[in-house]
Amino acid sequence: MFEVIGERINTSRKLVQAAVAERNAQYIIDDVTRQQEAGAAFIDVNAGARIGHEEADMKWLLETIQPIATVPLALDSPDPAILEMAFAMVEKTPMINSISLEKERFDNMIPFLKGKDCKVIALCMDDGGMPTQSDDIVARAKTLVEELNKIGIPTANIYVDPLVQPISTDSTKGVMILDAVRAIKAKFPEVHITGGLSNISYGLPQRHIINRTFVTLMMASGMDSAIIDPLDKKIMAAIKTADMLLGHDNYCMSYLKGVRAGVIES
Amino acid sequence: MFEVIGERINTSRKLVQAAVAERNAQYIIDDVTRQQEAGAAFIDVNAGARIGHEEADMKWLLETIQPIATVPLALDSPDPAILEMAFAMVEKTPMINSISLEKERFDNMIPFLKGKDCKVIALCMDDGGMPTQSDDIVARAKTLVEELNKIGIPTANIYVDPLVQPISTDSTKGVMILDAVRAIKAKFPEVHITGGLSNISYGLPQRHIINRTFVTLMMASGMDSAIIDPLDKKIMAAIKTADMLLGHDNYCMSYLKGVRAGVIES
Repeated sequence: MFEVIGERINTSRKLVQAAVAERNAQYIIDDVTRQQEAGAAFIDVNAGARIGHEEADMKWLLETIQPIATVPLALDSPDPAILEMAFAMVEKTPMINSISLEKERFDNMIPFLKGKDCKVIALCMDDGGMPTQSDDIVARAKTLVEELNKIGIPTANIYVDPLVQPISTDSTKGVMILDAVRAIKAKFPEVHITGGLSNISYGLPQRHIINRTFVTLMMASGMDSAIIDPLDKKIMAAIKTADMLLGHDNYCMSYLKGVRAGVIES
Repeated sequence: MFEVIGERINTSRKLVQAAVAERNAQYIIDDVTRQQEAGAAFIDVNAGARIGHEEADMKWLLETIQPIATVPLALDSPDPAILEMAFAMVEKTPMINSISLEKERFDNMIPFLKGKDCKVIALCMDDGGMPTQSDDIVARAKTLVEELNKIGIPTANIYVDPLVQPISTDSTKGVMILDAVRAIKAKFPEVHITGGLSNISYGLPQRHIINRTFVTLMMASGMDSAIIDPLDKKIMAAIKTADMLLGHDNYCMSYLKGVRAGVIES
């Protein structure tokens, strides 16, 4: 089944930032609980927005969330020191968000990840910037998988993010990513494909229908995870419906459960 | 761009049947006009439901529709005599709906189609019934394309209907069709893929979200046409959005036009 990485606990969101600044634990607990009830497979935790406070904020967030977490956390920081602290605080095998091929980030993250039992998001970004062609995305994914395998991370624990780009700037950007995902899954059947989706609709009106139509197309190509807001009912309904149509939902059980719970509507 | 075959002018629909029985031309003209305005690429015309009246009803429908038709018609009948009459009445190159591999239908349709300038819907049905595997669908499509090529119908004029089946009876039915469509398009890049979609959701609740999610997945596989109700705003919005994301909409012009016209909403 498709795995949703719940993106809401991020101090770049105004209400979360305020709750973190005030150490309002109930707000955070409520938000995480709602994400879990909506079907998040991971809860992303990002404390990066309050400059100079990341370590203390991350520590407080994990102390607050850990006791009520029923799913693993995605520890979201570019700083290996923060990640070491966070990794020691969690109970379930976490996801690390993220490594990339940018030299500084790569060189920082490899020693941190080496020998650790974790899942990891691998961004197809290098110092040359965003990829410009399908083949380029596939080549970057291949390098990331091979480098991560070398330090003991199995392919099944790697979540490649092909980096979705706005279709408003170039009408081939959708096909570029869809083709890349299909090629990556053909080369590495065990790898997961994840990422944010909302960049696809940047600069266009009625963005939600673009985002949920795009996740459906991405799922047809092999995407099996995404970093989204699990409280967005319409995108969750599209994902559950597509999962059923792609044969991942025996006897349509999960779809029917979603309909009964009122989260899937025509 | 995706081609919608507007399915509304069918005497099996209660209000259409009443309009035809009463020779209420205005009702038919209004319905066809609305389908055209909504973006139908073909208007299907089926007069089969009033037993003993098909010939007269089809003649009256075509006399009524022809003067206001801005798009070609899809002449929908199993009877070559009715189709001969209808073919002589239309101005734009029509679509013929349909041929199949069922022996009686095939043997009736081949002499009618031979040498005609038309498009044709080719159903992957034979006397053994519905296909049960992807390979079976692909084999039937191949036979249909080859037989139609032999009598002078070019591949680009053939619209293969892989016959969508309910996922409620077997959770692999979606993947079976999606894989078949991809394989048919790989073998015959010029062929079109069409069909009804609503069978996929037969027996399940909230059918509309299933149908529009399925058309999105089918478009990812290569479906470029469907027999649907063009006045169903939500499925049309999904199709226009998917068309843009699949690179068929330069500068997102058609999408933006749809948003401005109020037919695409998040």
